[in-house]
Amino acid sequence: MKIDSTPKKDGFRMPGEFERHAGCWMLWPIRPDTWRLGAKPAQKAFSEVASAISRFEPVTVGVCAEQFQNARNMLPPQVRVVELSYNDSWMRDCGPTFVIDGNGRIRLVDWEFNAWGGLDGGLYFPWDLDNLIAMKVAEITRTDRYKAPIVLEGGSIHTDGQGTLITTEECLLNPNRNPGLSREELEDYLKAYIGLEKIIWLKRGIYNDETNGHVDNICCFIKPSVLALAWTDDPKDPQYEISAENLEILQTEKDARGRTLEVHKLPLPAPVLISEEESRGVDIIEGTLPRNPGDRLAASYVNFYIANGGIVMPFFGDPKDIQAKTVLEELFPDREVVGISAREILLGGGNIHCITQQQPA
Amino acid sequence: MKIDSTPKKDGFRMPGEFERHAGCWMLWPIRPDTWRLGAKPAQKAFSEVASAISRFEPVTVGVCAEQFQNARNMLPPQVRVVELSYNDSWMRDCGPTFVIDGNGRIRLVDWEFNAWGGLDGGLYFPWDLDNLIAMKVAEITRTDRYKAPIVLEGGSIHTDGQGTLITTEECLLNPNRNPGLSREELEDYLKAYIGLEKIIWLKRGIYNDETNGHVDNICCFIKPSVLALAWTDDPKDPQYEISAENLEILQTEKDARGRTLEVHKLPLPAPVLISEEESRGVDIIEGTLPRNPGDRLAASYVNFYIANGGIVMPFFGDPKDIQAKTVLEELFPDREVVGISAREILLGGGNIHCITQQQPA
Repeated sequence: MKIDSTPKKDGFRMPGEFERHAGCWMLWPIRPDTWRLGAKPAQKAFSEVASAISRFEPVTVGVCAEQFQNARNMLPPQVRVVELSYNDSWMRDCGPTFVIDGNGRIRLVDWEFNAWGGLDGGLYFPWDLDNLIAMKVAEITRTDRYKAPIVLEGGSIHTDGQGTLITTEECLLNPNRNPGLSREELEDYLKAYIGLEKIIWLKRGIYNDETNGHVDNICCFIKPSVLALAWTDDPKDPQYEISAENLEILQTEKDARGRTLEVHKLPLPAPVLISEEESRGVDIIEGTLPRNPGDRLAASYVNFYIANGGIVMPFFGDPKDIQAKTVLEELFPDREVVGISAREILLGGGNIHCITQQQPA
Repeated sequence: MKIDSTPKKDGFRMPGEFERHAGCWMLWPIRPDTWRLGAKPAQKAFSEVASAISRFEPVTVGVCAEQFQNARNMLPPQVRVVELSYNDSWMRDCGPTFVIDGNGRIRLVDWEFNAWGGLDGGLYFPWDLDNLIAMKVAEITRTDRYKAPIVLEGGSIHTDGQGTLITTEECLLNPNRNPGLSREELEDYLKAYIGLEKIIWLKRGIYNDETNGHVDNICCFIKPSVLALAWTDDPKDPQYEISAENLEILQTEKDARGRTLEVHKLPLPAPVLISEEESRGVDIIEGTLPRNPGDRLAASYVNFYIANGGIVMPFFGDPKDIQAKTVLEELFPDREVVGISAREILLGGGNIHCITQQQPA
């Protein structure tokens, strides 16, 4: 049922991703103007992600009617497949944000979704079905639902579950999201609907990230007061200045409980560019972001998913894959780190964190 | 997961509808060649049925993407709405048959569905989406699934949950269902997949029933060894001979445990005919059964749903409504009997039992 209140008023908060999950939600990629070769390589990659996560927690994949049987056949039997229609397959961004209270009750927040910018720089049109996903997940799970009156994607926020949120100005203050709201008004909404006391504003996200700099591609919480930040040591890379600027903010900020922050650098892979062949495999549609050969993709190891007892992270076929995996193994000593070849997901404009959404226990 | 065995082998059986339920499944009517005026009056009637049943047990309604928001708005908030695609909305017939074992485990049987006769007298074409409903319900409920290799609709069978099945020759032996199978071979499949010892064969169903005489419109179990049979006292009604023939069978048969059967007559309403106006409201489509003015509809009070603590029965605006309700109140002294104006469901070719499917507890 729809609740006309806010999570904060009712004693609910969004937990950290590192807290215990009931499971994970995903969607099945289909659109040929996002995913090359009729989305067939992406479907294989998504299946591998779902399969890896299902080793740690229950996974549900939403699939449109036309692809139901193919998805059911490609996904392992322990992954649940439910019918859902959508415009694209980024569950993190169009899906719900789950919140919990002290009595173990669960509800969800249904944000407005406008495909990363609506008619002003959004990535495709229309986005009507994406905007119903959170409501449909609420129905399937019989979860009560808050409808938040602001545009927000799940990938643009990370929380420590203890009152602190990190986000980026590049995305949340972009006039193509909530143009009528000041920073303070936006903060009030975030505090009310996520259950927060403090918001830490980073400046920009990964270079050339088509989401307008989602935080989940550049920085995340490992646990309260400990973060990972995407990093390059190459001062000629335009990413260098972006990461350095964010590091400086994190080194001077404190979290909601007054703690200083411990920041770990996670190396970036060498720049990943769209090939001629990859570009040719994508349908060209008016209103959809084109995929041009030579364009730099927003590749980052920060875009991993934290599961119960596991980390599922992207690999890019780069020597840094193993280096990044080692960093995560040290940061998450109690979790098994699994790498998945993620180039086909990256070609669509995001990565493993972008295509997943945790449901807390 | 799909199980390559049979319920009987694994110790599972289909319980009687009067046993305890976990809930009820329905689908949302849409097709304008079945339902008049764009299915709007039928949607109202289905909503009233869902609403009535939801007073007694949880209800889930499967809705196609296009009608999701309208269904969500028309149905009461306690009814769960999930996305499902289908060709029409007869959950009893295209949906699963749930089976349980002695340890309270639940599984389901996924029958072949061919729209009541396939290309040889079936009611519409195609039926591909209907045939996936049972699999999709298995996914949503995370229930293991048997795939039965025979054509069968849920409305063509009733069980006492103690080894006895009633069905009709008119339907199950119709060459448009399983033409390659003898009566004995068919019995073996029914016994294996429903968990039975004995099948009682009635002859024909309600006069002019487009399902080829589904048993659920003419006869049902009130509890083991006690049945209700649709009845008319008018010897000039073609229904008279049909009901009398079935009564004679029931009076001489015994159930799987050797008990004689107690049969209660449930009066039929006066013949219900399609009006000129009702006929005009239905789209005419090649391959779909036409709805001609003056055609007699298969109206029967036997087509009720047994819920936990409740009976939801059809009313036809006939003086017999109250008489039939009184009979059911006497037969079900521990359940509240609720009547729903069901003419709009009947116009589509079935009634309340045909549009529902219980999930046992």
